[in-house]
Amino acid sequence: MVLAITDAARPAPKKSVALSGVVAGRTALSSVGGAELRYRGYDVVDLATSCAFEEVAHLLIHGDLPNEAELQAYKAKLKAARGLPDAVRRSLEALPASAHPMDVLRSGVSALGCVLPEPLRSNPRGATDVADKLVASMGSMLAYWRHFAHGGRRIEVETDDDSVGGHFLHMLRRSAPSRAEVAALHASFVIYAEHEFNASTFTARSIAGTGADLYSCIGGAIGALGGPKHGGANEQAFVEMCRYLTPDEAEDGVRERIDRKEVVMGFGHPVYVAGDPRNQVIKDVAARLVADGASSRLFDIAQRIEAVMADAKSMFPNVDWYSALVYHMLGAPQSMFTALFAMARTAGWCAHVIEQRSDNKIIRPAAEYIGPEARAFSPLAARGNAPRKARAA
Amino acid sequence: MVLAITDAARPAPKKSVALSGVVAGRTALSSVGGAELRYRGYDVVDLATSCAFEEVAHLLIHGDLPNEAELQAYKAKLKAARGLPDAVRRSLEALPASAHPMDVLRSGVSALGCVLPEPLRSNPRGATDVADKLVASMGSMLAYWRHFAHGGRRIEVETDDDSVGGHFLHMLRRSAPSRAEVAALHASFVIYAEHEFNASTFTARSIAGTGADLYSCIGGAIGALGGPKHGGANEQAFVEMCRYLTPDEAEDGVRERIDRKEVVMGFGHPVYVAGDPRNQVIKDVAARLVADGASSRLFDIAQRIEAVMADAKSMFPNVDWYSALVYHMLGAPQSMFTALFAMARTAGWCAHVIEQRSDNKIIRPAAEYIGPEARAFSPLAARGNAPRKARAA
Repeated sequence: MVLAITDAARPAPKKSVALSGVVAGRTALSSVGGAELRYRGYDVVDLATSCAFEEVAHLLIHGDLPNEAELQAYKAKLKAARGLPDAVRRSLEALPASAHPMDVLRSGVSALGCVLPEPLRSNPRGATDVADKLVASMGSMLAYWRHFAHGGRRIEVETDDDSVGGHFLHMLRRSAPSRAEVAALHASFVIYAEHEFNASTFTARSIAGTGADLYSCIGGAIGALGGPKHGGANEQAFVEMCRYLTPDEAEDGVRERIDRKEVVMGFGHPVYVAGDPRNQVIKDVAARLVADGASSRLFDIAQRIEAVMADAKSMFPNVDWYSALVYHMLGAPQSMFTALFAMARTAGWCAHVIEQRSDNKIIRPAAEYIGPEARAFSPLAARGNAPRKARAA
Repeated sequence: MVLAITDAARPAPKKSVALSGVVAGRTALSSVGGAELRYRGYDVVDLATSCAFEEVAHLLIHGDLPNEAELQAYKAKLKAARGLPDAVRRSLEALPASAHPMDVLRSGVSALGCVLPEPLRSNPRGATDVADKLVASMGSMLAYWRHFAHGGRRIEVETDDDSVGGHFLHMLRRSAPSRAEVAALHASFVIYAEHEFNASTFTARSIAGTGADLYSCIGGAIGALGGPKHGGANEQAFVEMCRYLTPDEAEDGVRERIDRKEVVMGFGHPVYVAGDPRNQVIKDVAARLVADGASSRLFDIAQRIEAVMADAKSMFPNVDWYSALVYHMLGAPQSMFTALFAMARTAGWCAHVIEQRSDNKIIRPAAEYIGPEARAFSPLAARGNAPRKARAA
């Protein structure tokens, strides 16, 4: 069944966005409209409050929410796919402790693509296996590199944990997380899993359009997500709330910065005008972690900044605002926040790649040429020999 | 000075191409129209017949053709940037001999981005340094991996060769190439260096739009270029000419395949309708290599297939057809042809990333939603427990 989003529901084109409002393809994976986000027709708020991340990964990659038998089979498949081939481990060991986790993740995915290439011709349906392998093992890459680079430990990544989130937190922290902590991470993963033609997903589709393998698509998407105007924003959102010691100090500081026309990260969204539907979900998750014993200091500061931004600027937090706080409460280092986003979004990216393939189109727009008119060529010897002033690159 | 391409010069939108004819941004780097390709206003045929690759890389990345003093300085800079950090070498050593060179190149670039990250904040002009580092060292990555994976040799990549092409051929073949061979490789690099908003370049710009680092942009572009509908086509073009032992056999074989409506790779182009201006350049290069002593067998076969395709289908070869043959004549293994293309196109990709940054736009198109209408969520327990039939992914 086809549901067209009415033009009225679409936000006006933005000058800061190229191709804003221009339809670049079709998708059955999600719809964004008004203050609603749906994955294959399901409201993301229902999914985030009720589903394990594996259910949503199954919905996106395999087409529908699993029943109990399917979910058990899927979780078993993911559990069996946690391991990293020797060559990938050695690649990760070569990377320095100073590397950004997003760069590490991009490198790990690329290495995995060298070792276990997608069987594009012999098994066109193999994409879902590669997708599941990535969903299962990207956490292994991050945790393996982290412990090796920062302490020389070669950790075991094939653990007995029951879920993607539990596996990651257990490896990262070297102790089993509580059920509440796993549920918190999964809720954040569910809301991060998919978001239509955002920049990283569109990048994955652009790569997929040439017939490239899934690893190339996901590697490119990781690269795009890392940018500060995209997923990199959750690391910056955390910096905002860490600037202040108390809610009152935060209020004064943010009001001053608003007066100076400074941008406060973590607020506003290019697609949602009335509010981001994911925001309340992740705020509730943060509140539950506080109720369960996490420190409330940053949560109180985050809430106060939210109130100030609403009052002074009529701006609402985006999904990054409380997600960053949740990741901090779960013990992830700030430099890993965007990489956690990437682990979640991989489910959506892979589903989009599979969809772009079935659409069978290469993505090749036109450009407006603004360079010099045709000019005569001078061979090297005719160009003189004096050093010239540096020219704009 | 602004030169708008007239609508008449634009090819009609193609159904197999998403965003065909839709302007996704502005560029001063190249214009494609009719049967002409210009880099910053210069005809690519002039550049390819007169310039070393470094001149064209300088034109694209640094803004203009260098004079003699600038060219010497630029070549010295590139020469000094050939080395690979330890961590990159160890990453490359971890990758198996079975890996595809494009996957290796993507991994090497990603690893380099972990070790020598782009100083995005402290030095926004650092992009040109990273660009030059990539132009200088991607050949090192390929040759280093190749010799290690296929023979356990750790080759020296910091050689005394005078040019990018000479450096690569020397490392790959372990003996110094002739001037004619270097000129041949450079001509192919010049014609491959830039081509407006092709799929890999547009991918690089999509990644750049989020504020991501240059390594992420180039890694994504390598991934896109590898697809069989894009750069991967030059490997497939070579397979076409290798199917036959003689020109007569090729003629019979290709005519039969045309009758069976089979696609013959290496012919036709989505942008050029009347003929690819780069084709004659690279065909002449191949002819010169034959005149200098290279075997004429495949060249004769390639020419015959060209004649048959013109006669039976009115189709002309694209740039990949004779490029593949030239790379073979220069001693590159077939699996490395697309990686050579990537080494050349890196100059264009980097220039586009720098341009996209100055444009300061994120690339975020819209999607047409074709999925299910809003549907009610059922919690897991309400979804039954029986195994269901596999559903479409």
